Amino acid sequence: MPKQGVFKAAERGRKLSDSAFREVRDRLRLELVELQQSVRAASRYPVIIVLAGVQGAGVVDSLNLLNTWMDPRWIRTHTFDTPSDEERERPLFWRYWRSLPPAGTIGLYLDGWYGEAIAGRCHGAPAADFTARLARIAHFERTLADEGALVVKVWLHIAEARQRRLAHIHSTDAAFGFRASDASWPQPAPYGPYTRAAARAVRLTDTPQTRWHVVDAADDNHRRAALLTILRDSLTAHAKAIRASDKADKKAIKIQKNAGKKAPMINRGPLARIDLSRKMSEVAYAKAFHTRQARLYELQKAARAQGLATIIAFEGWDAAGKGGAIRRITYALSARNYQVVPIAAPNEEERSYHYLWRFWRHVSRAGRMTLFDRSWYGRVLVERVEHLISGEAQRRAYGEINDFEQELTDHGTLLVKFWLHIDPEEQLRRFKEREKTPYKRWKITADDWRNRKNWPRYEAAINDMIRATSTRAAPWNLVPANDKQVARIMVFDIVIKALETALKGPRR
Amino acid sequence: MPKQGVFKAAERGRKLSDSAFREVRDRLRLELVELQQSVRAASRYPVIIVLAGVQGAGVVDSLNLLNTWMDPRWIRTHTFDTPSDEERERPLFWRYWRSLPPAGTIGLYLDGWYGEAIAGRCHGAPAADFTARLARIAHFERTLADEGALVVKVWLHIAEARQRRLAHIHSTDAAFGFRASDASWPQPAPYGPYTRAAARAVRLTDTPQTRWHVVDAADDNHRRAALLTILRDSLTAHAKAIRASDKADKKAIKIQKNAGKKAPMINRGPLARIDLSRKMSEVAYAKAFHTRQARLYELQKAARAQGLATIIAFEGWDAAGKGGAIRRITYALSARNYQVVPIAAPNEEERSYHYLWRFWRHVSRAGRMTLFDRSWYGRVLVERVEHLISGEAQRRAYGEINDFEQELTDHGTLLVKFWLHIDPEEQLRRFKEREKTPYKRWKITADDWRNRKNWPRYEAAINDMIRATSTRAAPWNLVPANDKQVARIMVFDIVIKALETALKGPRR
Repeated sequence: MPKQGVFKAAERGRKLSDSAFREVRDRLRLELVELQQSVRAASRYPVIIVLAGVQGAGVVDSLNLLNTWMDPRWIRTHTFDTPSDEERERPLFWRYWRSLPPAGTIGLYLDGWYGEAIAGRCHGAPAADFTARLARIAHFERTLADEGALVVKVWLHIAEARQRRLAHIHSTDAAFGFRASDASWPQPAPYGPYTRAAARAVRLTDTPQTRWHVVDAADDNHRRAALLTILRDSLTAHAKAIRASDKADKKAIKIQKNAGKKAPMINRGPLARIDLSRKMSEVAYAKAFHTRQARLYELQKAARAQGLATIIAFEGWDAAGKGGAIRRITYALSARNYQVVPIAAPNEEERSYHYLWRFWRHVSRAGRMTLFDRSWYGRVLVERVEHLISGEAQRRAYGEINDFEQELTDHGTLLVKFWLHIDPEEQLRRFKEREKTPYKRWKITADDWRNRKNWPRYEAAINDMIRATSTRAAPWNLVPANDKQVARIMVFDIVIKALETALKGPRR
Repeated sequence: MPKQGVFKAAERGRKLSDSAFREVRDRLRLELVELQQSVRAASRYPVIIVLAGVQGAGVVDSLNLLNTWMDPRWIRTHTFDTPSDEERERPLFWRYWRSLPPAGTIGLYLDGWYGEAIAGRCHGAPAADFTARLARIAHFERTLADEGALVVKVWLHIAEARQRRLAHIHSTDAAFGFRASDASWPQPAPYGPYTRAAARAVRLTDTPQTRWHVVDAADDNHRRAALLTILRDSLTAHAKAIRASDKADKKAIKIQKNAGKKAPMINRGPLARIDLSRKMSEVAYAKAFHTRQARLYELQKAARAQGLATIIAFEGWDAAGKGGAIRRITYALSARNYQVVPIAAPNEEERSYHYLWRFWRHVSRAGRMTLFDRSWYGRVLVERVEHLISGEAQRRAYGEINDFEQELTDHGTLLVKFWLHIDPEEQLRRFKEREKTPYKRWKITADDWRNRKNWPRYEAAINDMIRATSTRAAPWNLVPANDKQVARIMVFDIVIKALETALKGPRR
């Protein structure tokens, strides 16, 4: 099969007469407008439309058509330009994540995340890197689609001869040709290499959940009608599929809930191996604390100078001392170099995005540290225990989280994860103490008591989480926290060690 | 009066014994926690706390104290570092605006917007520039306070001798002194110049709505107790004041509504002088359109190359052709260089900020163009006509909008504002046509018919708006739009002319 076989069927030169186009146009236009309104009304998923193609295939005209026809309040066009420094200092996919449309709306992506990748390949990126990048793109799209996003990708194709002919026609047309005849506007690459790279991209990222549609774009009428039909059909099928899968999920969750009540809990796993008996005296703590504070202060300065971004995620039982540990760390940092991000239940805006979106949003710039007080692991903890998501979504989440963390560490971000562990007796003691102290009473709520009742179910979820997401790049650090002094010093030591390693070897 | 007189009273060396502090501490802590919860429950206004002071005055300790005591979910600390390129390419206040806390939460600002200004002055900025900057800061804070934000500013003061003594103590203390003894961390300026500039800043930005509190910070206990007392008192007084002013506003709006029903409408003003009789033939339009498209394409390239940011605001009657005019413009632009921002009623997130926040958010980067389909003028149009705000808020809005636009144009952003004008007969004709065409029916809603009934009241609001916000830097362009061709070509001509002027003189 020739390398560009994926485009061959789109070179048949299919045409549609003006009258035939007019006949379908108004109907398609009405259907699309109605589909857009129902996407909006459901507000259950976003629609991501990637429009791509070589110069002359009509990408911009297609984009204008959709923008003209649809309700502009719920559609937004995106293109990715040279990255800004804020973008370069974060993982590659950060700017794609921050551009994503919320549920109920449409994001229209000119070249999507493919433009940069294909241009890179044409300008000499090795084939292996290109393949790896396409795999990351496929993962990214899959992650979105798995949560319900509709991802429609349309490649507008024309043969090389057609492109040459068009370029000639345009360059001699003073009125229409201002775009095509513009030699100062750099084209991504000549037709041949560009189309070869594109064919590879289309082949490697065409999945059942994230389909590519290749359109024969030589004739404007045919191209427009084909694009509109693809969107109409994709939107219709997706709405149906989502209804069915939401129904199936609901049923599965109900079954899980009932099964959960009966199933015996086996308390064995990484948590059981944590030694909670360790203690540290006040004097030893005070001494250890001060030397570590000073050391951390030095290291954050080095991290800032070297542009090392750090993300520290704190998870742990209610009242395990996450907030206290975080504050001890931040006391040793310069206020310009860190942010603390407390994670509670998502708000309305956050709920309208993929669950990882709100964490991507807070990813540190170069040289800075972000401390999460609770994190993306809520997906496999509270959302599992409270039966907010289906078993399938839970299992999928481990992979999604590992992918997310991989994006961070591949970029060079230092990621440190803590589980602060206490036993139920210690938790009870702390709950009671909080209730007794007037100015601490707000820290304890009905949720905390309810979570406590779910201890064995949380324990199972935590053990699974630790097993499934302890990767080489981002292992879990299990911290015995019955004794706050022990926990805090251990957190310091782990952060210091991780920074020293990331900053290439220990230094004075 | 000596220049630093504002700080003199804070050098009395007031002290608080440990036991006296312990006595007030727990009560203040409880009160603050409760006040924070009631700010959250009301979700009516944000709290902006600016904490500043010379090195050694305890700013960081105060910051840690507040972060330790309060519920971390509703408090966020901000510091302003060297601006990123995304920040440098936008007006000075853009990054302050994007950092603002939503209603119900607290933003804690280390040095606030004063740090940069004072450091700039110490490093040689002329006194006149510093004064002008302080005036802009005062305007900015006033704008926030006028919408209900609580702005509390605390300056922690110590005398120069005390700072010297502290520096000596710290530098000899290996455990605690890692921060103070750090010579590699640049201090903003020596005590003298810094304090002189700070005194000027405090004097010029201390207004009844945005008070400065100067605290004698030589003694830690006194400093902490004073800070907490200031916050407690400010929060308490503000909650009361907001309740009273919301009640007064409600009453005023009710009176306005009744008065509005009776008051005669005088239709005279800028709108009446627009000549709606002009027409243009299809042939003349087609020719004019194509040459202008090509010209605009050239100009956007030059704007991109020169880093000129452009904002175009389209206002006009319902069905006046805003969307069509915007699309004709964007057809001539490269997709990488523009964004269209349609403005509808604010969503939940947007409502939790100052009404100008959502416009600041979309301010163009250098070289890009942002086209607003409706704009911040909704404040003095729909919000006035629908009695959503009090008369006082309406009148204030003209100044706030002029300030906003001044910030844009001072930065070098090109701002072009259009009012597309049609008469009621033409609007009726267009409404009916929309209702007749199936795929255009969604464009017309009950709101449109209701707005139409309010025509005379809108007319009065528009005339007032044009009078109050036609500034030299950002004049209104009144476009007769009964004939779409005339309107579109005129919009092109005005944009082209504005770009040519901004790009320094017309070119081929």
